[in-house]
Amino acid sequence: MKQPKSESRYSLAELTQGLDVTIKGDANCQIIGVCPIQQSNVGCITFLTNPLYRKFLTSTQASAVVLTEDDAENCPTNAVITRNPYYVYAKIAEYFDRPTIQASGIHPSVVVGEGSQIDPTANIGPHCAIGRHVRIGRGVVIGPGCVIGDDVEIGENSRFDANVSIYHRVKIGKRSRFASGVIVGSDGFGFANQKGVWHKVPQLGSVTIGDDVDIGANTAIDRGAVEDTIIENGVKLDNLIQVGHNVRIGANSVIAGCTGIAGSAVIGKNCMIGGGTMIIGHISICDGAIITGGSGVEKSINEPGMYSSGVVGIVPAAEFRKNNARFYRMDHLTQRVKSLEAAVKALTERE
Amino acid sequence: MKQPKSESRYSLAELTQGLDVTIKGDANCQIIGVCPIQQSNVGCITFLTNPLYRKFLTSTQASAVVLTEDDAENCPTNAVITRNPYYVYAKIAEYFDRPTIQASGIHPSVVVGEGSQIDPTANIGPHCAIGRHVRIGRGVVIGPGCVIGDDVEIGENSRFDANVSIYHRVKIGKRSRFASGVIVGSDGFGFANQKGVWHKVPQLGSVTIGDDVDIGANTAIDRGAVEDTIIENGVKLDNLIQVGHNVRIGANSVIAGCTGIAGSAVIGKNCMIGGGTMIIGHISICDGAIITGGSGVEKSINEPGMYSSGVVGIVPAAEFRKNNARFYRMDHLTQRVKSLEAAVKALTERE
Amino acid sequence: MKQPKSESRYSLAELTQGLDVTIKGDANCQIIGVCPIQQSNVGCITFLTNPLYRKFLTSTQASAVVLTEDDAENCPTNAVITRNPYYVYAKIAEYFDRPTIQASGIHPSVVVGEGSQIDPTANIGPHCAIGRHVRIGRGVVIGPGCVIGDDVEIGENSRFDANVSIYHRVKIGKRSRFASGVIVGSDGFGFANQKGVWHKVPQLGSVTIGDDVDIGANTAIDRGAVEDTIIENGVKLDNLIQVGHNVRIGANSVIAGCTGIAGSAVIGKNCMIGGGTMIIGHISICDGAIITGGSGVEKSINEPGMYSSGVVGIVPAAEFRKNNARFYRMDHLTQRVKSLEAAVKALTERE
Repeated sequence: MKQPKSESRYSLAELTQGLDVTIKGDANCQIIGVCPIQQSNVGCITFLTNPLYRKFLTSTQASAVVLTEDDAENCPTNAVITRNPYYVYAKIAEYFDRPTIQASGIHPSVVVGEGSQIDPTANIGPHCAIGRHVRIGRGVVIGPGCVIGDDVEIGENSRFDANVSIYHRVKIGKRSRFASGVIVGSDGFGFANQKGVWHKVPQLGSVTIGDDVDIGANTAIDRGAVEDTIIENGVKLDNLIQVGHNVRIGANSVIAGCTGIAGSAVIGKNCMIGGGTMIIGHISICDGAIITGGSGVEKSINEPGMYSSGVVGIVPAAEFRKNNARFYRMDHLTQRVKSLEAAVKALTERE
Repeated sequence: MKQPKSESRYSLAELTQGLDVTIKGDANCQIIGVCPIQQSNVGCITFLTNPLYRKFLTSTQASAVVLTEDDAENCPTNAVITRNPYYVYAKIAEYFDRPTIQASGIHPSVVVGEGSQIDPTANIGPHCAIGRHVRIGRGVVIGPGCVIGDDVEIGENSRFDANVSIYHRVKIGKRSRFASGVIVGSDGFGFANQKGVWHKVPQLGSVTIGDDVDIGANTAIDRGAVEDTIIENGVKLDNLIQVGHNVRIGANSVIAGCTGIAGSAVIGKNCMIGGGTMIIGHISICDGAIITGGSGVEKSINEPGMYSSGVVGIVPAAEFRKNNARFYRMDHLTQRVKSLEAAVKALTERE
Repeated sequence: MKQPKSESRYSLAELTQGLDVTIKGDANCQIIGVCPIQQSNVGCITFLTNPLYRKFLTSTQASAVVLTEDDAENCPTNAVITRNPYYVYAKIAEYFDRPTIQASGIHPSVVVGEGSQIDPTANIGPHCAIGRHVRIGRGVVIGPGCVIGDDVEIGENSRFDANVSIYHRVKIGKRSRFASGVIVGSDGFGFANQKGVWHKVPQLGSVTIGDDVDIGANTAIDRGAVEDTIIENGVKLDNLIQVGHNVRIGANSVIAGCTGIAGSAVIGKNCMIGGGTMIIGHISICDGAIITGGSGVEKSINEPGMYSSGVVGIVPAAEFRKNNARFYRMDHLTQRVKSLEAAVKALTERE
């Protein structure tokens, strides 16, 4: 996080230093915060990327807008022109982000097990429990109420919000972030049925999480049955996602909320998976696949591209019911069409 | 909560005081608890609203039943007649609800940051961490293990069960309730892609929650990217719901469990949304919309009424597979019907 | 858990003692751990049950493989032959499972309410809050940060990982396990609408959980409205499952992650429910039903067997869009087929 000046006031030139942008207008314009394009104020900076919001551009009250060259001609105020407005906005917004937890070392209420090594620059909040033989790197921040199991390793500058639970032997890289309620390393769902009774299969693997991973609130990642569940560098997981045991998620893939990934599924690099998607176990999804939200993925995907499943389309319930009922007669309907084709063929030939 | 008498025994007349009901039978009948209509006991009161349970009415052993005038004629015991039996039952049941946390002030293990103002009537359980400059109103109850971030404001008589996490700057109204595991104010899922790498977009807004809001176990509500995510007065959210950044949910809307609401969606007032529904981002749903469970909402809804999507209908798997396969030939089937129509037209004209 | 020898090295004969297996090869072969069949090492034992992995058998480097008699002839190393390889593997893997929490009694930071009885062999981790009149049995292990409400009863050898929340009056049997983030006993989602405002219906029941139940990370189970929500013996619930109020789940049923079960649904014994399934309220599912993942169950199931719903099949988005559009004209298409049938009939009769 960039060091905020106490007054939180920057010129456009300061905010865009080091970024590949062109300023059209007053580079000395003073900016005191960010705002949405439709509800903007003097002194704030906003951005335009989603075409849905283009209609608000000409009447924006913002003091500056980050946008593409194509949109710049309609910009009524100072323009920060770039090929990637969202990225440039992200970098500018960092100036207005305020740190929420002050560095304060290890709170006296924290319980630390024997043999753990905690870097003196780490910050551990009240009521945390740190296991034995844990290694916590430089600049790590652990919010209140977190529990870190035995033998966990946490790389430098990783950050845990309140009430995160990390099980034993999980390995976490650098600069990774965990929202509240995240669970990493819970036992995978493995039970063997013997004479009608389910017996737990010990889950002997763990979880390896790379660098620059973000994991959203109340997302749960199970430990592997034999080897580790693996989340590679740069993966971004939204809230309330279930990651089953032995799953591997490739670098820089992003997955939206409420998605479920069953055990032993392998997801490639640079994938984008929409929210509410259910992915079956033991399949693989290749690098660069895009899956639209709400899909069910029941087989492997081997070519990059955009994929969908399910039925999409919200309609009035009465209309829905009619079409839905037909779905359950679809095989029958197809047979009727087949009969018709035969009858028409016979009629045509008879002529 | 109404003050229970130590003996927890009330006459029908006492229980219905101030409610718009007619008692048919013995208003002095003594009631000691509630029970389901099908497994009722002497001394208990039950209710009938769901037609599925009407068949149990004539044989109920309950000492009193709350029901509508239409059902009253079949009631074999004392009847509490009202136009809204479920509401009347709710008010009666309050007499039998027992408080689970006793007022005890701030537990000595609680850590409170500098500058926080906690009303002396508030009750904060063990192992909570309260940030700096937090304001906690009269009668607020905070269960064990909760974490409240810096600059949070909590209105009077709001209540937090165990292990709730509230991030910095969240504002909460009066009489709102948070079940265990609720997360409010986690960072929204915003990342800008620059050369294949995802960069975090700072989430500078917060969350504003109104009065009389109920939020279910393990539900997560993200903070806004620029402005606040907003949950208006009287909203009821069930368990395991994901509310993305910048979402607004209108007053008195109810949303059932496992629903996902993507970023910047706007939901109107008095909506009812069934469980497991996935709502795409940047759309709006008008006041008074009803969405059946399991729907995918991929576009805005502009008229009140009931809406559905997906395919509903659980059937034997073998039957399912046949129809499901046909779904994936539906465009082809439509083409075949089109060809048939042309052929039949030709045949008809030729005659 | 079996007592591991300090060196964690066992012969095949030791590992399979008491199990109904035949060893083909060297029963004295020394095993030091488990491995997956495709990435195996000398000294490790693996297993083969999923046909997807059969191709790895002939080249496995493992020192032993647990498999069926049919597969044994292709096994290039020592074979442990059984009719139930997954179960036998589970029992063998127990030898290599290491306990993660040492017995240490009640941590001094734990807060215990008045009148609670905790067996001296129980182990309660840091920062837990135990309510009043709680009964905790022999050998129970409660991880750090758990909150146990008033009047809870926990049977012997049950186990709670970190940050679990159990509400008041919940009853838990023996040997049941709760992963981190589990919530048991939160209020059911019951609100009565009176003049547009939702009034909370007191949830006066609780939750009863049997013996040998497993509950996965961040799963939430609501308390009953009047009587208890019931989870019978041997039930296995995966992560992020929602169990509504008054639900009953029959003995030895297994339910995969991200499933939602609405209030008052009754699920039989020995059922298997795939992940991401949504089950409507007030229905019943008979013993022995199998429901494929991602289904919506909108009505009762009365015969054992396998059931499905929804639309399954991930396809390229362009292809999907074409067929999806046709779905919304399905009633119209059926009408067109009906017209064609009439026309063809007329043509045929005219000849």
